[in-house]
Amino acid sequence: MKLSEKTLDCRLSPIRKFHPYAVSAAAQGKTIYHLNIGQPDIHTPSVYRDTLRSFSESVLAYAPSPGIPELIDAIRGYYCDIGVRLERDHVLVTTGGSEALDITMKCILDEGCEVIVAEPFYPNYYTFIRANGGKVVPIPTSAENGYRFATREQIEPLITDKTRAILFTNPGNPTGTILSQEDLRLLADIAKEHDLYLIGDEVYREFIYDGSNRLSTIGSMEDVKENIILIDSVSKRFSACGARIGAMISRNNELMQQALKLAQARLSVATVDQLAATSLYSVDQSYFKAVRKEYRHRRDVCYAKLMEIPGVVCAEPMGAFYMMAKLPVDDTDEFQRWLLEEFEDHGETLMFAPGSGFYAAADGGKQEARFAYVLEAPKLARAMEILKKAIEKYNNR
Amino acid sequence: MKLSEKTLDCRLSPIRKFHPYAVSAAAQGKTIYHLNIGQPDIHTPSVYRDTLRSFSESVLAYAPSPGIPELIDAIRGYYCDIGVRLERDHVLVTTGGSEALDITMKCILDEGCEVIVAEPFYPNYYTFIRANGGKVVPIPTSAENGYRFATREQIEPLITDKTRAILFTNPGNPTGTILSQEDLRLLADIAKEHDLYLIGDEVYREFIYDGSNRLSTIGSMEDVKENIILIDSVSKRFSACGARIGAMISRNNELMQQALKLAQARLSVATVDQLAATSLYSVDQSYFKAVRKEYRHRRDVCYAKLMEIPGVVCAEPMGAFYMMAKLPVDDTDEFQRWLLEEFEDHGETLMFAPGSGFYAAADGGKQEARFAYVLEAPKLARAMEILKKAIEKYNNR
Repeated sequence: MKLSEKTLDCRLSPIRKFHPYAVSAAAQGKTIYHLNIGQPDIHTPSVYRDTLRSFSESVLAYAPSPGIPELIDAIRGYYCDIGVRLERDHVLVTTGGSEALDITMKCILDEGCEVIVAEPFYPNYYTFIRANGGKVVPIPTSAENGYRFATREQIEPLITDKTRAILFTNPGNPTGTILSQEDLRLLADIAKEHDLYLIGDEVYREFIYDGSNRLSTIGSMEDVKENIILIDSVSKRFSACGARIGAMISRNNELMQQALKLAQARLSVATVDQLAATSLYSVDQSYFKAVRKEYRHRRDVCYAKLMEIPGVVCAEPMGAFYMMAKLPVDDTDEFQRWLLEEFEDHGETLMFAPGSGFYAAADGGKQEARFAYVLEAPKLARAMEILKKAIEKYNNR
Repeated sequence: MKLSEKTLDCRLSPIRKFHPYAVSAAAQGKTIYHLNIGQPDIHTPSVYRDTLRSFSESVLAYAPSPGIPELIDAIRGYYCDIGVRLERDHVLVTTGGSEALDITMKCILDEGCEVIVAEPFYPNYYTFIRANGGKVVPIPTSAENGYRFATREQIEPLITDKTRAILFTNPGNPTGTILSQEDLRLLADIAKEHDLYLIGDEVYREFIYDGSNRLSTIGSMEDVKENIILIDSVSKRFSACGARIGAMISRNNELMQQALKLAQARLSVATVDQLAATSLYSVDQSYFKAVRKEYRHRRDVCYAKLMEIPGVVCAEPMGAFYMMAKLPVDDTDEFQRWLLEEFEDHGETLMFAPGSGFYAAADGGKQEARFAYVLEAPKLARAMEILKKAIEKYNNR
């Protein structure tokens, strides 16, 4: 039987591909610092569990396809507070930001259509675009230039008659870079002029360390409101990754009507998780403040220690909880395998996500690696110390 | 901005499309018997809520992409009991049977590929196939012939070099028909000879009223094990529709490796729902026996009353909880609207799912309707009484 060419073109997750090696290393008694995966260790607000506990319906029924009204209204309230006025029909509750991406791509892509994305990018973008018949058109960037991409010169030459959208993460995953209000305005102008969707994945919105504590969102731009699609999620915002609650948001009614067809086909999103996610929106601003302070501290510690390693190239990341760095090694995939199979320092080693998985071309990002600073600061410091020793040993082996 | 032609080709749910009319009718004080939607009123086993209550992890983390091992093993145990031996890698936990269908279609379809499905079919099949670039090729059937389709003469002429799969529901939704062991063998033979996937949506497996209490499954056929994909779900089995827990199951390792790519891209299925769904597999066989007895009674009452209406064509359904009937009206869509807007009997009316939505062609199934017998028997009897009066009045209006 034949398999889909589209799916054959996709890859296994670069973030999870060294899992078998990690299992072997752990079996040998090695301690591994996991900086490879964006699973925060921050406690989920306890209202989530309280809501689960109070669920008392005798029949666990389907929820409405667009989401339960309470959650839609909670999301609208959250957006109203950051200056984005949404009607109920503008919010489609999804199974994580992942389903929001999948539905978005299904709504806008036909076979061979192109989506422009700055490279390195969140690897799953590739799968969602390719599996839905589209093609990723990367905007090349560099570690030396802080992975900046928001210029006309970089973007406009890539636009063809097959281009349907520009997709970006802000704050950036894997880079941690932040787009300024001017950057966003430029992207909006380009989208407007070329009649493209502008898809803003802003799921790390709360994680910003430039002192403003407030991310500019493309959601509030009135003149391009029909071009804009926001990808939303409670996963990082409330450290509730396992809830699988996200949203596709757009003020383009025609688009949302298409999305509703797909939402109805998959019937609904998990009922109790929607109820519990609603309760998360009642947490106080002090929650975000405390979380931001913690991550900022981690960023500071992790970045300072990383930059002590000779030959590392990395602009200070200003958001999310990732750093993308160019390391003085020839191949970070090989290096990662070596770290798990052959290296240890006092019985300890570390994992990162090798850069190659964040590039469309098979030979991209070979010297780069993404570090998720989702551990406590002392552990991050220790992990960077291990990295320093390991690079030295690896290059002299 | 352009919208996807594929999604434009899809439709809103025929089961949900009269919802606005229902809201108006209810606002006017009318009582509506909802036979339109397959939302059972059977209580979800209380272990589900018990498990939610006992969830005590401080961080609600991502689950593994293929599903939590406990749930995978519970599903394997369930299948082992019905004669299907599965390795862990043969089971991919999904967000409902819906995601199992979506991932399956993504794995096997390229643009323009065809899937053969007996018509009338579960409407969402159309969306999952079309939105993933494929085309539904219907096998015509008729109410007069009990919607039978499993003959070489009906199926083989439809196979082309673009055919990738034959998809069926057993027991049937919307028809309630059951495929015999011989029917299944024939489908398997055809799939084998033409190198096609055979996708068995057996989510209504427990709902069977032919006295055997045991459905033949294609999952146990050894000679075609690489052709077969099972769509599984806890939604109907345990009356846990809102859990959104299903599975894609296949002993084709190459296929499951492709599915894993897509599973990793969407990260994971909701964590607490997986834990709670695991507990459902501990319920006793007496649960299924009692549920089956209740539905059988409902089927008997509903079918007997339906057949009292002159001009109705319907073979006695032997499984699931649906009846597909040909009614003596010219257009069941028009009739449904009239039932909500203009008709009442002592302040009461009913809803069904008009047949047109279960056909690929816009003019298919105009005289047919699907009735879900998911209410208590006296309510079903009353609903059929209302239907009888309504048909008489409608045809004499």
